[in-house]
Amino acid sequence: METNLLLTLPTYDDVLAAHERIRPYIHRTPILTSTQIGEMIGATLHFKCENLQKAGVFKARGACNAVFGLSEDLTAKGVATHSSGNHGLALSYAAWRRGIPVSVVMPRTAPQAKKDAVRAYGGTIVECEPSTSSREAVFAEVVAKSGADFVHPYNDERVIAGQGTCAKEMIEDLGELDAIVAPIGGGGMVSGTCLTCSTMAPKVEIYAAEPEQADDAYQTFKTGQLVAYDAPVTIADGLKVPLKDRTWHFVRNYVTDVLIVTESEIIDAMRLVWARMKIIIEPSSAVAVASILKNRALFAGKRVGVILTGGNVDLNKLPWQTN
Amino acid sequence: METNLLLTLPTYDDVLAAHERIRPYIHRTPILTSTQIGEMIGATLHFKCENLQKAGVFKARGACNAVFGLSEDLTAKGVATHSSGNHGLALSYAAWRRGIPVSVVMPRTAPQAKKDAVRAYGGTIVECEPSTSSREAVFAEVVAKSGADFVHPYNDERVIAGQGTCAKEMIEDLGELDAIVAPIGGGGMVSGTCLTCSTMAPKVEIYAAEPEQADDAYQTFKTGQLVAYDAPVTIADGLKVPLKDRTWHFVRNYVTDVLIVTESEIIDAMRLVWARMKIIIEPSSAVAVASILKNRALFAGKRVGVILTGGNVDLNKLPWQTN
Repeated sequence: METNLLLTLPTYDDVLAAHERIRPYIHRTPILTSTQIGEMIGATLHFKCENLQKAGVFKARGACNAVFGLSEDLTAKGVATHSSGNHGLALSYAAWRRGIPVSVVMPRTAPQAKKDAVRAYGGTIVECEPSTSSREAVFAEVVAKSGADFVHPYNDERVIAGQGTCAKEMIEDLGELDAIVAPIGGGGMVSGTCLTCSTMAPKVEIYAAEPEQADDAYQTFKTGQLVAYDAPVTIADGLKVPLKDRTWHFVRNYVTDVLIVTESEIIDAMRLVWARMKIIIEPSSAVAVASILKNRALFAGKRVGVILTGGNVDLNKLPWQTN
Repeated sequence: METNLLLTLPTYDDVLAAHERIRPYIHRTPILTSTQIGEMIGATLHFKCENLQKAGVFKARGACNAVFGLSEDLTAKGVATHSSGNHGLALSYAAWRRGIPVSVVMPRTAPQAKKDAVRAYGGTIVECEPSTSSREAVFAEVVAKSGADFVHPYNDERVIAGQGTCAKEMIEDLGELDAIVAPIGGGGMVSGTCLTCSTMAPKVEIYAAEPEQADDAYQTFKTGQLVAYDAPVTIADGLKVPLKDRTWHFVRNYVTDVLIVTESEIIDAMRLVWARMKIIIEPSSAVAVASILKNRALFAGKRVGVILTGGNVDLNKLPWQTN
């Protein structure tokens, strides 16, 4: 295993501590099955419904772990982050539960539903352009001004440990699985899953699913060099951001493979889950489902855990509706 | 308690037997909470998610109880029913699981998604006009020709006992509640709930929620005389049918009150659940939620169980989208 020794990384004990810390503020989300979708693949599929999580997304786990782990003297200046939407929403939820200030730098193009939800939790939105460079520049100003504690959307030990509680619940509820599939953007959920499984279920195969149109993790995984795009275009708006050093550590050492899917495969999978399972998932979640439908041979005959990461969509604009 | 002594009625023992019989074929559906919707009312709300049930609707319970209770010699001729959609779908699911024929008389105006789903389970659809009179006439022909066992959508002991397993699971999981709210059409779910609660939780208040535009149960409850409309118009397409003698027995003896809501209240409640809870419910389910939002004073401070009865909607046409 290659490890950058200068990098601070969370351990499985941090996952255990996170789970105790965040338990009062998160849902232990249900795990649903779908016979129909399972039969399409010849696999037994267990869907971990983080779309039913607080704030509609798994990121409530990492955000609560960071916010409720803050020492009392640090709470007055609050927390801040930049986010394509869901982490900002989750951090706003966590800050609201603890009663501390929160600022969120968010692309002006982020879905209105996510902006509204951040404001509903009392979060302050600072808009930037929809590129990584603009986001980071605007964010630096916000932190300089407020002195807020920076909770990175994914390249943060507290956040990765928090996300690891999701796989912990899956393995507690389901026993050992043959494979777990999760979408990958910056890699927070995948890293937490790797961290937890490395202790609880070391034999499970971990697949990261990514949009072809934002395939930086795929390129990174295949070349061994961190690849980042400035402003990729995909309907899976939660998966546009690149891996960073901490998440790359986990992906490199524990991920079995990165699977990529097209935009139309994402939309078809999203609609399939809505229609058959009667739950609302956002395109990022559908990426994981699409990757399984596309790679039947890889999953046939297996017990597969699928992480449905979030359910925050604009209900006025569904991607399969053309007008 | 007034009882028509000529009427055969299910007992709580039938609910127990039904639960054993149908267990392999149905989901024990999750019960979700929503802090946000609860706070709008000042109540603790527990949502029993029958939208996540097999076939997307609670009716899988009653249908499976009827189909799997058939003696072997009756299975060759199969089962038949008339249905505004969901019972036909659920009966098709049950018949498919047992491998027996099923015919469904369905209004030609029923949602395409429901017709497609009946056919996907191998059911035969026979179309009628969208009125009670046409439905009953066409159905009589079908039964005369096939000799199939008639499984009425709700006025059937086996079906009522099957629906009663839903409230049984709620009380097992949640303990005693102050109130249970369920939508009412023909009254199968409400009757099953009454039957179960009369033994398991006799103090719970049972509210039946109905569209103002199809308020036959409300009129029946208030006047004490069975009222039926031939072809009411409401977005809650599962709730257009009238009470019959068996369901009226349970409604009359055990229901606390019938609450009515407008079409726009139904649509608003439906959208609220989709947006906040990330689950897909059909308009009929939203009727129960709307009735709680409309009658805050009745529910404030209480522990309330809400039955979300189904999730079968046409994903191309959402009622809050104007074009």
